Amino acid sequence: MRRLGVALLGAGRMGQLHAELLGALPEVRVVAVADPLRENAERGAFLARAEEIYLEPLEALDHPGVEAVVIVTPTPTHAALIREAARRRQAVFCEKPVALDLASTEAALKEVEAYGVPFQIGFQRRYDPGYAQAKALLEGGEIGRVDQFRAVSRDPAPPSLEYLKASGGIAVDMAIHDLDLARFLVGEVVEVQAWGAARVDPRIGALGDWDTVSLLLRFESGALGVVENSRRAVYGYDIRTEVFGEKGKLVVEALPKTPLYRYGPGEEVRLDHYRYFTDRFREAYRLELQAFARGVLEGRPLSPGPRDARESLRLALAATRSLREGRPVRVEEVA
Amino acid sequence: MRRLGVALLGAGRMGQLHAELLGALPEVRVVAVADPLRENAERGAFLARAEEIYLEPLEALDHPGVEAVVIVTPTPTHAALIREAARRRQAVFCEKPVALDLASTEAALKEVEAYGVPFQIGFQRRYDPGYAQAKALLEGGEIGRVDQFRAVSRDPAPPSLEYLKASGGIAVDMAIHDLDLARFLVGEVVEVQAWGAARVDPRIGALGDWDTVSLLLRFESGALGVVENSRRAVYGYDIRTEVFGEKGKLVVEALPKTPLYRYGPGEEVRLDHYRYFTDRFREAYRLELQAFARGVLEGRPLSPGPRDARESLRLALAATRSLREGRPVRVEEVA
Amino acid sequence: MRRLGVALLGAGRMGQLHAELLGALPEVRVVAVADPLRENAERGAFLARAEEIYLEPLEALDHPGVEAVVIVTPTPTHAALIREAARRRQAVFCEKPVALDLASTEAALKEVEAYGVPFQIGFQRRYDPGYAQAKALLEGGEIGRVDQFRAVSRDPAPPSLEYLKASGGIAVDMAIHDLDLARFLVGEVVEVQAWGAARVDPRIGALGDWDTVSLLLRFESGALGVVENSRRAVYGYDIRTEVFGEKGKLVVEALPKTPLYRYGPGEEVRLDHYRYFTDRFREAYRLELQAFARGVLEGRPLSPGPRDARESLRLALAATRSLREGRPVRVEEVA
Amino acid sequence: MRRLGVALLGAGRMGQLHAELLGALPEVRVVAVADPLRENAERGAFLARAEEIYLEPLEALDHPGVEAVVIVTPTPTHAALIREAARRRQAVFCEKPVALDLASTEAALKEVEAYGVPFQIGFQRRYDPGYAQAKALLEGGEIGRVDQFRAVSRDPAPPSLEYLKASGGIAVDMAIHDLDLARFLVGEVVEVQAWGAARVDPRIGALGDWDTVSLLLRFESGALGVVENSRRAVYGYDIRTEVFGEKGKLVVEALPKTPLYRYGPGEEVRLDHYRYFTDRFREAYRLELQAFARGVLEGRPLSPGPRDARESLRLALAATRSLREGRPVRVEEVA
Repeated sequence: MRRLGVALLGAGRMGQLHAELLGALPEVRVVAVADPLRENAERGAFLARAEEIYLEPLEALDHPGVEAVVIVTPTPTHAALIREAARRRQAVFCEKPVALDLASTEAALKEVEAYGVPFQIGFQRRYDPGYAQAKALLEGGEIGRVDQFRAVSRDPAPPSLEYLKASGGIAVDMAIHDLDLARFLVGEVVEVQAWGAARVDPRIGALGDWDTVSLLLRFESGALGVVENSRRAVYGYDIRTEVFGEKGKLVVEALPKTPLYRYGPGEEVRLDHYRYFTDRFREAYRLELQAFARGVLEGRPLSPGPRDARESLRLALAATRSLREGRPVRVEEVA
Repeated sequence: MRRLGVALLGAGRMGQLHAELLGALPEVRVVAVADPLRENAERGAFLARAEEIYLEPLEALDHPGVEAVVIVTPTPTHAALIREAARRRQAVFCEKPVALDLASTEAALKEVEAYGVPFQIGFQRRYDPGYAQAKALLEGGEIGRVDQFRAVSRDPAPPSLEYLKASGGIAVDMAIHDLDLARFLVGEVVEVQAWGAARVDPRIGALGDWDTVSLLLRFESGALGVVENSRRAVYGYDIRTEVFGEKGKLVVEALPKTPLYRYGPGEEVRLDHYRYFTDRFREAYRLELQAFARGVLEGRPLSPGPRDARESLRLALAATRSLREGRPVRVEEVA
Repeated sequence: MRRLGVALLGAGRMGQLHAELLGALPEVRVVAVADPLRENAERGAFLARAEEIYLEPLEALDHPGVEAVVIVTPTPTHAALIREAARRRQAVFCEKPVALDLASTEAALKEVEAYGVPFQIGFQRRYDPGYAQAKALLEGGEIGRVDQFRAVSRDPAPPSLEYLKASGGIAVDMAIHDLDLARFLVGEVVEVQAWGAARVDPRIGALGDWDTVSLLLRFESGALGVVENSRRAVYGYDIRTEVFGEKGKLVVEALPKTPLYRYGPGEEVRLDHYRYFTDRFREAYRLELQAFARGVLEGRPLSPGPRDARESLRLALAATRSLREGRPVRVEEVA
Repeated sequence: MRRLGVALLGAGRMGQLHAELLGALPEVRVVAVADPLRENAERGAFLARAEEIYLEPLEALDHPGVEAVVIVTPTPTHAALIREAARRRQAVFCEKPVALDLASTEAALKEVEAYGVPFQIGFQRRYDPGYAQAKALLEGGEIGRVDQFRAVSRDPAPPSLEYLKASGGIAVDMAIHDLDLARFLVGEVVEVQAWGAARVDPRIGALGDWDTVSLLLRFESGALGVVENSRRAVYGYDIRTEVFGEKGKLVVEALPKTPLYRYGPGEEVRLDHYRYFTDRFREAYRLELQAFARGVLEGRPLSPGPRDARESLRLALAATRSLREGRPVRVEEVA
């Protein structure tokens, strides 16, 4: 009944969620929380029951009790922090993505592999009970050979233009979750065709980005897939995934959020719906951190690991190229 | 590919529904439609593709092509029309109930049995695909021994006070459908305890009737049941039935009516809901008439038959007595 | 309360469905049924309550009571029968498609337009209560500007190779229904990219056809769409359609077929599912024929009409070209 | 950002759940865990991150950091522990029930009130998001005057006969949760009629207990209610609650447990279902403890409190009397 000594790097909005979840895991002892804003660091430390706070992440890494780090800082800092942790032989959990380009991603992961430290990337959907059960059923042959895949994700509202400018574009920032699910549930993708538009806000188009995209995927296995994303769904967070095979179909969709049905005038029944990904995937965030902590404590391999961090990014970059060039793009073109 | 020659007696609101359904059954040739209002008779004949119209039901019975009658006239006329048809050796389909009291019911059914004419009573729910499949599963042992039964029915709005005065009370007019389902799905009931109130309209209470009732049932098998009714549900027609057994549970409930989900602002999903029993049970009404026609043409026994007409009424009368006297009533007390 | 005099041409499997539905419409008097197989013609006449049977469709057209024809013969005969009816000034309802190529389609429709006869094409989904309500809501602005569209259709099992050889290929035979829905619900499509595979049966690939296809659509409005089809879904008929807009989302999907929930051992709940399109769309078939009859009787314009017959085919042909050539195809290329 | 110092008394099966939940609440610092089995106490302390373990609950109460106690020990010890905590001016959270009889319950609660310590009873359903939202909607007038109430609860399997002997009978042990919901959502109950049977296991009947019960309730407001319970549902934990009013209906039921739909051969769709109450209500258990901690820290009144502990028990005892005597029982008879 040992607890893993963890440093939490980053205590902004997502960092506080991780702080609360880490603080609630019996397997974890958060020894340090780092955030440049003292208020964030203090709030994070309260939630995580952490012993020390730091304004500088590298100092937190040097705390002697740190066996593992959980990185929830802004994306541009990820690669360097991964390297620093790897050099200290600390296990690494990093929110996705490692970086917005393949070169930095590969450089950081090379170091992880060189030092042999355990590494897990934060594609949290893989730990959602619905997706995890779908994966188990697929591996058990429940629907046989997979022939088609569909995934849709829509956010309730677009992020700020500031955020978007640094996001790497909708494919790298948003579709990557659906592309990772495609890889998780069906296998590697060899070709992608993507069409996009700026429907929600013309300023997003002016950035050279898109807010509405639809993609065709061709899997190595010959299966076909489609992915759809939008930056705005007024009814809340919209996520549904379907895997169709020779012996059946699996659909992952949470509806409704609260187990309450309202019957009202006008022959109408109303349910409520998820508001956002932190709402829909709170349990998945908890489970991925628990899997990380248990995996490190027990010396078991972590998943999703470096390969997933790299290949899901490569696929997102191929989609971005297709969006720009208006033609089908082979994933291997992105190197 | 013979068609059964049918006289439709009664072409009011429910009669017109029957006219349209009979006119759509290839197994049926409606030779006569009777209604004291010429306009109703004409409309019914148009819908039923009938050859002749009558203002007087007995004249319709004398049409030489009549092999069977479908009785949708006001309740007080049912027993006499059943007798007249039986004497003419015509098969009888009668909308429920035969009569509001047991004596008239038994007298009419005795004649039916004496002449040996086929007889079917209009408990249409038994022909709804959901209930019919539930019955088949129960007979196949799907859930083993039944231990509990629940049925709820609520109408969208109370009928007129005129109607209510002649209705026999809520148990005989409304709960009887749930009580018949109880008998159909689980078996005979030996004891009932009913509590009632006039919540929707005090004038209903002033008639000595109730608009809101909840019942406990004890089945011969030892199983327990509950039934709930209300004369008003602002969200439309409300009907749900549950059968719980040692190996599982069956629930019959249609939701939504139209296969359309509306996702709107405010994280809300809306479905629509059935408006009324003619809406929810249109297909059941069609199927019960088809079963009647086919059964008569092929000489097969009809169901539900005289015993169901009598026993479901007896149970409703026992519930009425319990409502009045505030005590558990043995069904056998009603004779 | 006049009835429209109809000749039903074709009384095979689909013809018999139409016979039964026409026979059940009070607005219709089927005066003639034609089928080269006497047995089919007789069965169709029984179901439709038709007065005369013919082995030769042109003879049926000459029956003096024929005001309108319902064409359910094999596809290659459609265009000629449409022309013959048009020349006789008879209103025409034709099962889709008019023909497998654009030239024959346009030739037949030109004649329809020249004679000014009412014409309706059998895209029955438009009359399904779910799709019809979706259309009404879209026209009422329920979800504002449409941004994305998704449709999936999967048949329970592939038809015979004989059938497939003459089918025009999966896009013209199957995707056309989803493409027509796209046009119905969202508007005209200007570009399509389609990828296909033969996953279900390699013999389908050997015919130069596909059994599994996924399509990207670009609408004139700038909206994006995806369509997915498969020739085999072991769980039954699979159809789901989603329209996503700036103010909400509409989803049309019927689940379950029967209003019965089965709770069984192993913490499991089971529903049943539609078996095939005749099962899922029976009411739509009835409603489209009723709309046709009422429209002709009342002199109102019919829908979907010649333009829909032509444009939905053109779109399917564009998809076929994209499947063959592996590139995005502008719909206007198909002329 | 202060944490409430809590002693957890009892670390058996339910105690460990509370340990884990308390350990995950940032508002709480568990200073002591007590259980007569050292193994339980140690496991509980690990989960709760507690500082000290005790084999004797009274010693834990004497730990100087204890501001509040959470009592999850066996029922017969509750009343004495409540008193001891009250005397120490510690806030009390007690798993239901305080005691199996009204006299002991009232004695313990009198002391709580005398010392003015905050007290909360563990009717966790009140904190489930579905029930809590239903309550808020009811208070907001969403469905107007309530006319009917229905609640069903069924456990997956009966507890041991040992447990049952000391349980107080099915009404006090099991129906009490539904009766408390009735009071929470609708208001006080004045009369109850209960029928019961031993269907699942005759040995339960031999104990003078029942495993299958159905109840009628009459509320002070004139509304009617039904409650159904069974000790065994092979499909898992079964809980559904309906509140019907003049302006609508609210239904609380969680279906399915995991957001995964499985479409399989035979036109079948499968969902999964909750296994047990700890599964269905895990979040409610967390939220009730959070509400307790926050309420004590902020000096706000706790709910459900002493009155609910007493009145829901009184109602369960009235149901027990009705089960025994086979007659309607006025709740006020139980004193």
